[in-house]
Amino acid sequence: MNQSQSHLGCIKKQNFTHAETQAQKMHEVVGEVVEVGPDVAKFRVGDTVGVGAIVGCCRDCRPCKGDTEQYCNKKIWSYNDVYSDGKPTQGGFAGAMVVHQKFVVKIPDGMEAEQAAPLLCAGVTVYSPLSHFGLKQSGLRGGILGLGGVGHMGVTIAKAMGHHVTVISSSDKKREEALEHLGADDYLVSSDSTRMQEAADSLDYIIDTVPVFHPLEPYLSLLRLDGKLILMGVINTPLQFLSPVVMLGRKTITGSFVGSIKETEEMLEFCKEKGLSSMIEVVKMDYVNEALERLEKNDVRYRFVVDVAGSNLDQ
Amino acid sequence: MNQSQSHLGCIKKQNFTHAETQAQKMHEVVGEVVEVGPDVAKFRVGDTVGVGAIVGCCRDCRPCKGDTEQYCNKKIWSYNDVYSDGKPTQGGFAGAMVVHQKFVVKIPDGMEAEQAAPLLCAGVTVYSPLSHFGLKQSGLRGGILGLGGVGHMGVTIAKAMGHHVTVISSSDKKREEALEHLGADDYLVSSDSTRMQEAADSLDYIIDTVPVFHPLEPYLSLLRLDGKLILMGVINTPLQFLSPVVMLGRKTITGSFVGSIKETEEMLEFCKEKGLSSMIEVVKMDYVNEALERLEKNDVRYRFVVDVAGSNLDQ
Repeated sequence: MNQSQSHLGCIKKQNFTHAETQAQKMHEVVGEVVEVGPDVAKFRVGDTVGVGAIVGCCRDCRPCKGDTEQYCNKKIWSYNDVYSDGKPTQGGFAGAMVVHQKFVVKIPDGMEAEQAAPLLCAGVTVYSPLSHFGLKQSGLRGGILGLGGVGHMGVTIAKAMGHHVTVISSSDKKREEALEHLGADDYLVSSDSTRMQEAADSLDYIIDTVPVFHPLEPYLSLLRLDGKLILMGVINTPLQFLSPVVMLGRKTITGSFVGSIKETEEMLEFCKEKGLSSMIEVVKMDYVNEALERLEKNDVRYRFVVDVAGSNLDQ
Repeated sequence: MNQSQSHLGCIKKQNFTHAETQAQKMHEVVGEVVEVGPDVAKFRVGDTVGVGAIVGCCRDCRPCKGDTEQYCNKKIWSYNDVYSDGKPTQGGFAGAMVVHQKFVVKIPDGMEAEQAAPLLCAGVTVYSPLSHFGLKQSGLRGGILGLGGVGHMGVTIAKAMGHHVTVISSSDKKREEALEHLGADDYLVSSDSTRMQEAADSLDYIIDTVPVFHPLEPYLSLLRLDGKLILMGVINTPLQFLSPVVMLGRKTITGSFVGSIKETEEMLEFCKEKGLSSMIEVVKMDYVNEALERLEKNDVRYRFVVDVAGSNLDQ
């Protein structure tokens, strides 16, 4: 197969999240297929499709061969990166992008494009470890530590799986949001030692979305036998724990990075079937700078979606 | 069932290990059943049986109900502890002990009592996590960090499972021991950065038997995607790691504590089937003090077994 011929182009609505640099935000892209190479079998012009954080991998290593291409050491990012031929990857702010069909997913019929966007990274980032670590069955008790973009998706997806969901936060500020708007079952403030102690030994997993240094002991204590603390935050200060806390409950500290294309497809089907929606605010391209400023202040519930196609840009 | 009536007594050969206090060492006991209560169905007088670290549990909590009684918060140790009626547990240096049948395992026919003893804690301590974490199938690549009593058992059991086994040590001292006597496939000195780098991303698991603080990064780096670092050392100084090292290979830091009775039975059958033997030195009771002094100096390969029954003690 001529690889270049199996690419396709799409126009899209772009979702972005953290307030770092613009270049790092363009990786949850939904759009319409406008052109396909002759070897593209998976998609047709007019399909609504999505692209996540990754648009290339080596296809030859163990992770690639095991459908876990997100762990390939030669993965190519959908933004701020170059393809193997040296050409830049376009990222989501571009008017159109060219992506190999392997890294493109079909948005299920009936799912709104702007609803689908935040699922392509935040959604699969939560779905992937729950699926991989055998935590999809109903009746489990889960914790979501930190209620930002990924945390909000964590509550939504875990609730849809039939879990009892506790949001754990450093303050009381998001209690109403968690319980009333997102449907969490419980809310724990990590500094409330009485409530934390009462909740000890009660959770099957915690999705830890906190992106800065924090002690792990209080959260490891919340886990029951075989419980899993799943880290999502890239933290460059060493995290700490005491070995007996882990050993004496066979607890697991692990982490996970986005998800595979296969998991993204599964997750989209799951979300469609369960009728899940994300809390988003749709904006046009001319609002991007203001949106970025608001992101700096955590002033969004929970994702901006940029309507690139509807922004009348010159392409 | 009258619990007291379902206990049995046994005389035994006792294995001990770490050079801490005598009271902490009497927990790998093999002996002959000399008396059974009327409700004992599992054993008959004359059976050769074993008792490990635990002789009681609540039977009502989640770990107990899940055949993981070693994680019961109310477990009763076989030494230096009291039964729920306030009577002391006897430990392995006693001439006889009374133990509920639930916590007694049959030593398979044809297995020597002194060979069986070190399996009852060290053996199952290694077997349990390999079994629980899905690491029993042949062809895996394992690391054993630290070559003491548990490490030696780790190499033996992992080799019997058909794994490629690398011993990792802080010095070159045990290279011959590991490769020639225990049959390990490779030997890595952790300070040899070139060899450590060559071995990066190659192991499915590491059994970490080091009982003092040590950095985890070098060992996490040896693990491939989904690799597991299984801690066995009770270390009261916080251990450290960087979250990206874990996340970007979906690696697991976990730990495990001895094993269940069910796993002990399975492990004994496995060892019998594979013809495994432990490296031991059998001594009489009058040698115990000398043996303890030698343990302080790590001067034993790898376990002393005390022949209590053959020591002509007054009972």
